[in-house]
Amino acid sequence: MLNKLIKEDISYLAGYIDGNGSILAQIVYIPESKYKFQIRVSITIFQKSNKSWFIQQIYNLLKIGTIRNRSDNMSELTIVGNTPVKNLLTILLPYLKIKKPIANLVLKIIDNSLQIKDRNHFLEVCKLVDEVAEHTESRKRKITTEYVENYYKNNSFLN
Amino acid sequence: MLNKLIKEDISYLAGYIDGNGSILAQIVYIPESKYKFQIRVSITIFQKSNKSWFIQQIYNLLKIGTIRNRSDNMSELTIVGNTPVKNLLTILLPYLKIKKPIANLVLKIIDNSLQIKDRNHFLEVCKLVDEVAEHTESRKRKITTEYVENYYKNNSFLN
Repeated sequence: MLNKLIKEDISYLAGYIDGNGSILAQIVYIPESKYKFQIRVSITIFQKSNKSWFIQQIYNLLKIGTIRNRSDNMSELTIVGNTPVKNLLTILLPYLKIKKPIANLVLKIIDNSLQIKDRNHFLEVCKLVDEVAEHTESRKRKITTEYVENYYKNNSFLN
Repeated sequence: MLNKLIKEDISYLAGYIDGNGSILAQIVYIPESKYKFQIRVSITIFQKSNKSWFIQQIYNLLKIGTIRNRSDNMSELTIVGNTPVKNLLTILLPYLKIKKPIANLVLKIIDNSLQIKDRNHFLEVCKLVDEVAEHTESRKRKITTEYVENYYKNNSFLN
């Protein structure tokens, strides 16, 4: 669907995301995964629930992501995962202004995530996630590169 | 300048305004004016002051409006007045989604404002301003149609 979008729709969406969206990368703890942690990338657009028709309209346009009506009277459409986020960011990139640096960082994270060689390489990618967090001023962030490093040190018996 | 904008710039701006802008109509008390009140229409875009380069960039694109760096670490570009607001809304209208109904109302207000015949006609236009306020959920609004009507009743000695 994304390659059928017209330029005006893409630039509108870039403007909306610059104004009221988020592009995010997070380190999440997945104990059964190879490196015990994984990088989660996402794009979210927000709107008040009384205008959730707008969120539905954007979903109909993109045909990707999940709609959620939150308890605080906000609705959101979230696109999660390396492939859909990469596809959407690639077409948005030429039009983004405010969030262009984050989009570039997240694209770099995705490209690296797809070919992680070892723990040191994974930690390098985590550092890029720390950089994203500096842009987004994430306050409640718990899992940083330092957190993962300490985890590896304290669980050195794990492969 | 506005007629030199390319479609992608206009649709980007529509997306940004839908996400983080405002389109407004207000009744303001101007005792020296013919009807003692006037309608003030405006378009504003907001961004945190640490990204005020963005506000400057939009100003450079439009070449209209006034930049203000507020004390609460927000910067804004505001376009005020019938002619500039009408010109900008007219080109944004095909691309606006969330704020399209407000844009249509404000355009109707501007067209009426330019040819007000008497106090009753002015009060009719004030009612359109009340409608805009319903969309924007303005809480601290003091001057409504009712307020102007009461003012006229209590000051009937005025022409």
